[in-house]
Amino acid sequence: MTEFRHDQDRAARTGIPEAVLCEHKSAAQVRAIGAAVLKAGQRMLFTRLTAEMFAALPTGLREALDYDPDSNTAFLGAACADQAMIAGIGIVAAGTSDLPVAREAARTLAFHGYAAPLTADVGVTGLWRLTEQLTALRQHRVIIAVAGMEGALFTVLAGLVEAPVIAVASSVGYGVAAGGRVALSVALASCAPGVVAVNIDNGFGAATAAIKILRSGKR
Amino acid sequence: MTEFRHDQDRAARTGIPEAVLCEHKSAAQVRAIGAAVLKAGQRMLFTRLTAEMFAALPTGLREALDYDPDSNTAFLGAACADQAMIAGIGIVAAGTSDLPVAREAARTLAFHGYAAPLTADVGVTGLWRLTEQLTALRQHRVIIAVAGMEGALFTVLAGLVEAPVIAVASSVGYGVAAGGRVALSVALASCAPGVVAVNIDNGFGAATAAIKILRSGKR
Amino acid sequence: MTEFRHDQDRAARTGIPEAVLCEHKSAAQVRAIGAAVLKAGQRMLFTRLTAEMFAALPTGLREALDYDPDSNTAFLGAACADQAMIAGIGIVAAGTSDLPVAREAARTLAFHGYAAPLTADVGVTGLWRLTEQLTALRQHRVIIAVAGMEGALFTVLAGLVEAPVIAVASSVGYGVAAGGRVALSVALASCAPGVVAVNIDNGFGAATAAIKILRSGKR
Amino acid sequence: MTEFRHDQDRAARTGIPEAVLCEHKSAAQVRAIGAAVLKAGQRMLFTRLTAEMFAALPTGLREALDYDPDSNTAFLGAACADQAMIAGIGIVAAGTSDLPVAREAARTLAFHGYAAPLTADVGVTGLWRLTEQLTALRQHRVIIAVAGMEGALFTVLAGLVEAPVIAVASSVGYGVAAGGRVALSVALASCAPGVVAVNIDNGFGAATAAIKILRSGKR
Amino acid sequence: MTEFRHDQDRAARTGIPEAVLCEHKSAAQVRAIGAAVLKAGQRMLFTRLTAEMFAALPTGLREALDYDPDSNTAFLGAACADQAMIAGIGIVAAGTSDLPVAREAARTLAFHGYAAPLTADVGVTGLWRLTEQLTALRQHRVIIAVAGMEGALFTVLAGLVEAPVIAVASSVGYGVAAGGRVALSVALASCAPGVVAVNIDNGFGAATAAIKILRSGKR
Amino acid sequence: MTEFRHDQDRAARTGIPEAVLCEHKSAAQVRAIGAAVLKAGQRMLFTRLTAEMFAALPTGLREALDYDPDSNTAFLGAACADQAMIAGIGIVAAGTSDLPVAREAARTLAFHGYAAPLTADVGVTGLWRLTEQLTALRQHRVIIAVAGMEGALFTVLAGLVEAPVIAVASSVGYGVAAGGRVALSVALASCAPGVVAVNIDNGFGAATAAIKILRSGKR
Amino acid sequence: MTEFRHDQDRAARTGIPEAVLCEHKSAAQVRAIGAAVLKAGQRMLFTRLTAEMFAALPTGLREALDYDPDSNTAFLGAACADQAMIAGIGIVAAGTSDLPVAREAARTLAFHGYAAPLTADVGVTGLWRLTEQLTALRQHRVIIAVAGMEGALFTVLAGLVEAPVIAVASSVGYGVAAGGRVALSVALASCAPGVVAVNIDNGFGAATAAIKILRSGKR
Amino acid sequence: MTEFRHDQDRAARTGIPEAVLCEHKSAAQVRAIGAAVLKAGQRMLFTRLTAEMFAALPTGLREALDYDPDSNTAFLGAACADQAMIAGIGIVAAGTSDLPVAREAARTLAFHGYAAPLTADVGVTGLWRLTEQLTALRQHRVIIAVAGMEGALFTVLAGLVEAPVIAVASSVGYGVAAGGRVALSVALASCAPGVVAVNIDNGFGAATAAIKILRSGKR
Repeated sequence: MTEFRHDQDRAARTGIPEAVLCEHKSAAQVRAIGAAVLKAGQRMLFTRLTAEMFAALPTGLREALDYDPDSNTAFLGAACADQAMIAGIGIVAAGTSDLPVAREAARTLAFHGYAAPLTADVGVTGLWRLTEQLTALRQHRVIIAVAGMEGALFTVLAGLVEAPVIAVASSVGYGVAAGGRVALSVALASCAPGVVAVNIDNGFGAATAAIKILRSGKR
Repeated sequence: MTEFRHDQDRAARTGIPEAVLCEHKSAAQVRAIGAAVLKAGQRMLFTRLTAEMFAALPTGLREALDYDPDSNTAFLGAACADQAMIAGIGIVAAGTSDLPVAREAARTLAFHGYAAPLTADVGVTGLWRLTEQLTALRQHRVIIAVAGMEGALFTVLAGLVEAPVIAVASSVGYGVAAGGRVALSVALASCAPGVVAVNIDNGFGAATAAIKILRSGKR
Repeated sequence: MTEFRHDQDRAARTGIPEAVLCEHKSAAQVRAIGAAVLKAGQRMLFTRLTAEMFAALPTGLREALDYDPDSNTAFLGAACADQAMIAGIGIVAAGTSDLPVAREAARTLAFHGYAAPLTADVGVTGLWRLTEQLTALRQHRVIIAVAGMEGALFTVLAGLVEAPVIAVASSVGYGVAAGGRVALSVALASCAPGVVAVNIDNGFGAATAAIKILRSGKR
Repeated sequence: MTEFRHDQDRAARTGIPEAVLCEHKSAAQVRAIGAAVLKAGQRMLFTRLTAEMFAALPTGLREALDYDPDSNTAFLGAACADQAMIAGIGIVAAGTSDLPVAREAARTLAFHGYAAPLTADVGVTGLWRLTEQLTALRQHRVIIAVAGMEGALFTVLAGLVEAPVIAVASSVGYGVAAGGRVALSVALASCAPGVVAVNIDNGFGAATAAIKILRSGKR
Repeated sequence: MTEFRHDQDRAARTGIPEAVLCEHKSAAQVRAIGAAVLKAGQRMLFTRLTAEMFAALPTGLREALDYDPDSNTAFLGAACADQAMIAGIGIVAAGTSDLPVAREAARTLAFHGYAAPLTADVGVTGLWRLTEQLTALRQHRVIIAVAGMEGALFTVLAGLVEAPVIAVASSVGYGVAAGGRVALSVALASCAPGVVAVNIDNGFGAATAAIKILRSGKR
Repeated sequence: MTEFRHDQDRAARTGIPEAVLCEHKSAAQVRAIGAAVLKAGQRMLFTRLTAEMFAALPTGLREALDYDPDSNTAFLGAACADQAMIAGIGIVAAGTSDLPVAREAARTLAFHGYAAPLTADVGVTGLWRLTEQLTALRQHRVIIAVAGMEGALFTVLAGLVEAPVIAVASSVGYGVAAGGRVALSVALASCAPGVVAVNIDNGFGAATAAIKILRSGKR
Repeated sequence: MTEFRHDQDRAARTGIPEAVLCEHKSAAQVRAIGAAVLKAGQRMLFTRLTAEMFAALPTGLREALDYDPDSNTAFLGAACADQAMIAGIGIVAAGTSDLPVAREAARTLAFHGYAAPLTADVGVTGLWRLTEQLTALRQHRVIIAVAGMEGALFTVLAGLVEAPVIAVASSVGYGVAAGGRVALSVALASCAPGVVAVNIDNGFGAATAAIKILRSGKR
Repeated sequence: MTEFRHDQDRAARTGIPEAVLCEHKSAAQVRAIGAAVLKAGQRMLFTRLTAEMFAALPTGLREALDYDPDSNTAFLGAACADQAMIAGIGIVAAGTSDLPVAREAARTLAFHGYAAPLTADVGVTGLWRLTEQLTALRQHRVIIAVAGMEGALFTVLAGLVEAPVIAVASSVGYGVAAGGRVALSVALASCAPGVVAVNIDNGFGAATAAIKILRSGKR
């Protein structure tokens, strides 16, 4: 039932190759796509690949994958050597609960050859946790910020740095904050210039946007 | 068509006398209530009394009222002498657009005999505007904070002071922030302990809650 | 993957020490935080710690915790002696289904050294259940009220007492009331002055706000 | 452009004749319907007929109408003599702002030959205002209750009387209560048995339901 | 942790005795309430009692209960003899998926001594299924109608009968209709007079309202 | 500020030429587009052109337009002779308030050369109004149905005819039905096969879809 | 508890026979309906029949059914021979995750005797995937398009073909796109004429509408 | 009542000087801010300054302002010479109704010294309008795209270019698309990597983000 037509031209056209979002796909579909890519000898990034789905893949495919359970991502194909990684992007996570999304961003960046240090636990309830990192954060040319609950981090951070801030609301929260809608709205309504938003939990989208932004200055 | 039955016992029962919310009332209803209160020689606070509605009141009633067009409030009855005002409550407004709501709170407090200094324009995009006021803000025993748009002020402020923070979302904003829902949700979802919320634009409610809180420590 | 940076200064700054919300954290993250706190010999409150997650903790940590399955809270560190507990706060729950949230508030208060009697089953459909408790309820200096479904308790209660009422909507209900939004809106829209709201199911937030309120009168 | 086909059989079929909701109709449409009904010598109830639209009707039609600006209703055709009016239905309004909706219900009842005393200003913030009316209210066989804001009246009232309560949320409120949704949800989520709801501001619907209910016991 | 205070006076006050909504209660809470009622020798209706929760009750209580898995209801105490059941109420269900809610209504009626024939599968897509039942349906003095999806049944039915129609939206549907909101809104927005609504899936509420309505004509 | 680039190829590509939606355009923009089309000697349909905006157009353009204030549409260019109009599409409107939307559909059809009889006032509260038209309605090969409030017409109609039904929710209603969302949801959730929906108030879209449908059988 | 009344006349009345939506029905209800249809020797389409529910059916019924786990559909009764299938309808799916909905449409068409080629993986991020299929797609007289996430396919496709496009939003997506609401809104708000929508995930409804449309041109 | 505290340090801290959002401010507040800035001899950008509010400013201030009624923006202070403007940013608007938002972006860029060509009327219903501009669009290093209704432009464009796309939903649309929510959701849910979003109608925010992005590559 899978009829996957790889958009191989996408990297040339947009700078970012196609990736496979495994959520909402059946295990059979992921398996079929993986087999096709493996056979064609291509590189591919898989996101939202749960441990259960990974375990259900055939041994050959599983062994070919560099799988990271903390971010539910997998790489097919040769990794970039660490020393060859491009710098310039930083990732900031408000709380420990936001780490899986932050790590999806970090892994997406790594797959494309970008190194991005992750600064965790800088929620603005304890403002010092953010301000003591400020000198380091100001070195980045683009910052990906991940926050759930009320997302106040986005505004405070963007008011303190020159780099554009890509805000990723995480679906962390309960009551009115359940599902990440409040944090997303906060990012969009932020009074601080330079905050742009991607979809809730979309670490992949934040990473690819960061790459495009970094490259936009280089052409 | 007006059948107003004054809850005269309310002050004794709850500590706060009944007030008249003029919004959603017809001019005739407000006039009738005003006349009844004036005749009975009672004191009364009117809120959401627009300049248009005020202008439509009979001269006698209008002259008896201490009307403030910036907050759309009016006092009927003797005001408290400034030097007799009780201290302990502070008001903070994120932006100039939030001032009408902040002033509704200030006027409600004044009507009940409480003085409350108003600190304006402390939005967290320019964090220094808040932190340079911190010593003064830490003197308050209760703080009313008014903010629209993304309301990040609530969390940052509550992470810096000991006083409980009564958050009033103002209906200032556009797009996803239109109507104040985002700022309200932010107040409710705040990670900072000690933030409590009242309805959007409810400066009156914040003020009466502040009075009750201040008194709760005095009994 | 856990990078927990304890905001140890928070108690000094805001009067309330940092606590750990276990919801949305992985078992590994909670375990790592617990181990760090245990090793540092600090006290810590854990909330939303389910029985399943508690059971998955290492024996040493589990034995060090005072765990309460009815409220999903755990204390690490020495408890306050009952006779040393500070009075002044009361808790009211509309129905038996609201008890877990009410108990999260009670446990949070206990961890910080405050005793708070819990009055249960006072839903206003049977008004006598509330009014027969009125003399007792009027003794409290702050009242935490927990209600789901249509939350009419908040308004009726606040119209009868002098103390400020911290309303906690519980996510108890079905149909239009599912998830607690209606009860929360009722608290915010209440005509009764002195009602303030925290997030749905946020017994912890209500308790810490109550402590701040009680203290605000004491400085 | 008007093609009005009168459902003349409706009274026989359902017990309630068709009425004309003027809202969302153009002045030309209302005029055409009025002319047709007048010419046919029929009786007709017009609801949501604003003063502006009424003023724009031709003199002959205007003079034939018994128009009430407080409820925006008009009667075409002979009124029922007061002494012939049928008793059994009572109307309760929480606040003065709820009176227009309450009066739409009262006028609809009057058009159909039912007398309904209106008890105003019984919001539950001052519970005594409701309880002092209780003996009278318990005489009614059906009660129409109108409330905006948080609508706590519905539950408290239904917990105190035997009659079924038809709850009409009024669109009175601001912030989270704007538009009447909260009061409506409260009516639907009420823990008190015997509360049924009609649409927001639907005084007409409440009245016709009350008539059907009263008759249902008489057949 | 259960502190159940039975509102024993409720039947005298409102005509309907208190019932126990088991949803959102823990098994321990239901068990405790059941034991207390059993010990006191009282009658009690339990609703939303799932088969799982029922199976977890102690044998003694389970044997004392008349449990119906199709409606998740249980009776404690002597049933009314069939021949003594009071007539006048009819129940209509649009589709087979709506039967559990319809049956919750039927069981609630039975517990209180009312017999109510259930007419199923009368969705208006096949209008003849409704119209062929019309003579029978017109005999009822009150009709409870249950429908999910788009709920068109409510309007069509109410346009054909004299009896008041209590509309119960069922949470049957998917996509835009998921959760029953559309069917509920349709009931509230219905152009047909005499439709009143209760909460989604609230067969219990519809039944108790029907009883109150039937009685209202009898006093 | 207008930079209008006419998609002249659209008729060839999709069968329907581009039209101009005047809503959200400034008077200057509409004027500029009109002048360009007039100068190029092309035909053009303008929708949502209010009487105010029409009056503000220059005399030359105004005289060149065939303007219909009941539907806020205008034709530029030669009309189709009535006897040349293509039959097969019927329009049904539930109430008189739905006529402007129905007429936008009728005018759009006329501009493209299709005649469509309009059957008005067939709301299902008086079912006979629909059923007495059934023989005529069954002649149509496509039916456009317009309804606001609760939109029950869509389901009932689609259950009685063979033709596909294009449902247009009109923004007629108040309370929960305000803005047309309920009627739209009803169309989408309808149990009757063959109901398809377009946007609220989108008479234009319904008409163009009807044309495409009619043609789809002809190729 | 099942009282299924088959609307056997529906095919004659509307052209489409009744089908059984298994979602929200209990296994017992589906079993009873299946047995009745089997006994009556009729044909019947079952939709949303999960593998779990299918496995729970009695062997006899299970063997009589042509079950397809990819679409959760089952046929009871003789299938149409492939060579007798009617052409004219095409199905397009944006991504592999949309295939189950697309296949529900394909199977519904097959049950009624229509063959419909399925073109998969034509999401507009790689526009060439759509345009390279354009010649083939332009042969269809009706197109069913299935897309989740942001549903941009609907507009782009409808701007390129003459056939009417029936848009089916699939509930594929996360964050703001969760549940299919965004894709549905996009279909409804599309600027391209000729897009009509059915409920989210409603492959069945799209297929039956397509049949009605195809037939409408044939009468 | 105005207490404006200029965040003069903001340009140094974040690269973008503070601007004045006039919406939700009173005329008196805007006048006071303008006077202060004028007196201090500073430069300042005013956004959402309606023609009415501009006309109400004192003559001196009005003459000092470079006001543009198409975008409701005004510059105070010396403009940048056209030949000194920095290139690299492009603006794309889907329809003529989106031009005011696009122009707010263009003016904001101009105030900060950036030239940005505006490509209008490239809605994807006529795909050729976009593709014929593709060579030019591919020259930009950052693209701001403005679209209302269903916003399909964002995805199609981002799938064709290398530059990051800042999507600005405009509040252009009706029915389900009213207010811009659908277009915003489409931007966030877009399958195309490299799309980031700002608030609805936020041309200012898109422009300042574009500047930050362009600069990020230059440091």
